Amino acid sequence: MSEHVYKMLELVGSSTKGSDDAIRNAIARAGKTLHNLDWFEVLETRGHLAEGKIAHWQVRLRVGFRLD
Amino acid sequence: MSEHVYKMLELVGSSTKGSDDAIRNAIARAGKTLHNLDWFEVLETRGHLAEGKIAHWQVRLRVGFRLD
Amino acid sequence: MSEHVYKMLELVGSSTKGSDDAIRNAIARAGKTLHNLDWFEVLETRGHLAEGKIAHWQVRLRVGFRLD
Amino acid sequence: MSEHVYKMLELVGSSTKGSDDAIRNAIARAGKTLHNLDWFEVLETRGHLAEGKIAHWQVRLRVGFRLD
Amino acid sequence: MSEHVYKMLELVGSSTKGSDDAIRNAIARAGKTLHNLDWFEVLETRGHLAEGKIAHWQVRLRVGFRLD
Amino acid sequence: MSEHVYKMLELVGSSTKGSDDAIRNAIARAGKTLHNLDWFEVLETRGHLAEGKIAHWQVRLRVGFRLD
Amino acid sequence: MSEHVYKMLELVGSSTKGSDDAIRNAIARAGKTLHNLDWFEVLETRGHLAEGKIAHWQVRLRVGFRLD
Amino acid sequence: MSEHVYKMLELVGSSTKGSDDAIRNAIARAGKTLHNLDWFEVLETRGHLAEGKIAHWQVRLRVGFRLD
Amino acid sequence: MSEHVYKMLELVGSSTKGSDDAIRNAIARAGKTLHNLDWFEVLETRGHLAEGKIAHWQVRLRVGFRLD
Amino acid sequence: MSEHVYKMLELVGSSTKGSDDAIRNAIARAGKTLHNLDWFEVLETRGHLAEGKIAHWQVRLRVGFRLD
Amino acid sequence: MSEHVYKMLELVGSSTKGSDDAIRNAIARAGKTLHNLDWFEVLETRGHLAEGKIAHWQVRLRVGFRLD
Amino acid sequence: MSEHVYKMLELVGSSTKGSDDAIRNAIARAGKTLHNLDWFEVLETRGHLAEGKIAHWQVRLRVGFRLD
Repeated sequence: MSEHVYKMLELVGSSTKGSDDAIRNAIARAGKTLHNLDWFEVLETRGHLAEGKIAHWQVRLRVGFRLD
Repeated sequence: MSEHVYKMLELVGSSTKGSDDAIRNAIARAGKTLHNLDWFEVLETRGHLAEGKIAHWQVRLRVGFRLD
Repeated sequence: MSEHVYKMLELVGSSTKGSDDAIRNAIARAGKTLHNLDWFEVLETRGHLAEGKIAHWQVRLRVGFRLD
Repeated sequence: MSEHVYKMLELVGSSTKGSDDAIRNAIARAGKTLHNLDWFEVLETRGHLAEGKIAHWQVRLRVGFRLD
Repeated sequence: MSEHVYKMLELVGSSTKGSDDAIRNAIARAGKTLHNLDWFEVLETRGHLAEGKIAHWQVRLRVGFRLD
Repeated sequence: MSEHVYKMLELVGSSTKGSDDAIRNAIARAGKTLHNLDWFEVLETRGHLAEGKIAHWQVRLRVGFRLD
Repeated sequence: MSEHVYKMLELVGSSTKGSDDAIRNAIARAGKTLHNLDWFEVLETRGHLAEGKIAHWQVRLRVGFRLD
Repeated sequence: MSEHVYKMLELVGSSTKGSDDAIRNAIARAGKTLHNLDWFEVLETRGHLAEGKIAHWQVRLRVGFRLD
Repeated sequence: MSEHVYKMLELVGSSTKGSDDAIRNAIARAGKTLHNLDWFEVLETRGHLAEGKIAHWQVRLRVGFRLD
Repeated sequence: MSEHVYKMLELVGSSTKGSDDAIRNAIARAGKTLHNLDWFEVLETRGHLAEGKIAHWQVRLRVGFRLD
Repeated sequence: MSEHVYKMLELVGSSTKGSDDAIRNAIARAGKTLHNLDWFEVLETRGHLAEGKIAHWQVRLRVGFRLD
Repeated sequence: MSEHVYKMLELVGSSTKGSDDAIRNAIARAGKTLHNLDWFEVLETRGHLAEGKIAHWQVRLRVGFRLD
């Protein structure tokens, strides 16, 4: 019946805590302006180092949502 | 003369009929809100299975259109 | 609630008719011995040529099914 | 016994009808000048859009044939 | 001396908690029916979104085990 | 402190002059409607040929900008 | 006529002698429990080092066999 | 109407001046024996170093041309 | 003004606790002998299994630092 | 001074003996009709299996030669 | 006769001028401490944007040099 | 207990004899200055051709060793 079309966004979420948290932050931000968020895929995990420590985790994501 | 800039969207089209039809559905949806659609590239072909059959074909596309 | 685990198989389906049909043939074969088939992904599309024509379409798939 | 050597060509076939037809067109063209065509592999599927529709399907192929 | 042969499985583990936990769930399931599990490799990290949150983390793994 | 989220666009810039200039053209176009542009990555370099010469250089870019 | 379906296994063969021998060992092991073995593809070549020498060559293979 | 078939060549152009110039040199050479050159894609950029400087830029290209 | 040059190292960090911790361990080790650490990128996540559990998480990283 | 242009061929060599020998067979065949052969790169190693043994090793190569 | 061994470094060169210049800067820096530099390969081209313009081009390279 | 950190080198070994021998030569060279060599992975196999024959086999490797 339903032959939906989905659109993908590419986002980078960042976090001082860890990689999963960076993903959650990106999803939370996407959810502010989009409904029908359906899935995500991790594309790249990086981070910024300062004073020999991980200052920010940065995860690039593809986020899919259903178009109405 | 013309040094156009193009923007790419990433879409997933779905269809109960087949892979080409899933692509056509995604292009039709993109054409509702965008003019100047110029090309597409297939990035991934998948499908959802139910009761041992292909319930939906799902094709992820990159669609390019010219910015005015 | 449910934290399912899925297993993937890799299959090559073949067909004299076309690429979608080769996929359907592989799914049909998988469904003979497995239930809970959930999704597939196309990994490679090839074919065998004979007398300058396509004798067989061959599509390599990843098929996922839920473990009980 | 036979330790054949094969050569690969890269072709793009196009079609107004669909992706499989674009492949068949490329194979038909290759068969005009080469015998011993043995296999093909799909490398990329794209298309040209015009007036919000698929004007041409374009499939890039590797075609292998046996050297005498 | 020993020239072992290893077999690889591909599994997707899921979890409501996080990416590492999805991996642990897949390994735990594999360990129910296989002994001699030797290593794993992460192939893909995705997730299912519901109501703007991560409902399930899904990690695709290759798991290697030694054949007797 | 700051746990920013970034969004990526994919653009193709074109130029009659060269590959770096095609990149600059795409960035200039993106800057017309977006502020907080932060980085770019080259994804693909191609070109259109006419009369045996390079008529247009075409560079596909990922451009990242900070969401407010 | 025949529209066969093939299944792929992923194996790692190891050898103290060399990379080709590691492949032969994996194929020999697969042949103990499977008939209709049809082709293999090398996916990765690695090795374990001990005392500055190659202790084991390890080759990861995809092996295809025809399902009855 | 037209369902053209295109053939791809792979060339490496070299230049003492820079990467774009290496591409132009390869296209110029291809144009000596082929007409209907239609597009190119950059596959790899390398160079030869001598006395701590870049002696030659080397760019590997795919060049597509229309078959008559 | 500043046209810095950066050097990349490739490291594998390991941990009994989880994937993020394996990354932190590698960064901590790199910081013992290098200053000006600037960023990291995750290249591969694997692990060693023992008795059906994850004995060590192993993450391969690229670490970039600024040359003086 | 010299700004050479190189052309690449793609060949598959086969051998009953091993992977290096399949490469040598492809190079020997290329040398029959081309001079100025300059380098090769291995793109894929596969083989055909018969009666549970390796009947033919098949190596796909890119071979570069200098255009006059 | 000579069976040399080469070592690769990975560097990122940056430049305010363009992509080729970023490569030259990285090579120049490598040449300060290493002799026998032999070749380079471009792995990634990125850049930092500020005020809607390219502030720095950044090119990641693999540089090979002969070990004595 | 042990949460080791490993460092990777990238080397190209060469040989007039064959691909495995080129790997052994690179490992032998690495072992002159490094202890705790632990594993290698083949990244690329190429060769230099002269007078229509393989003059040198060249294999690019990643070599991992344990940091103290």
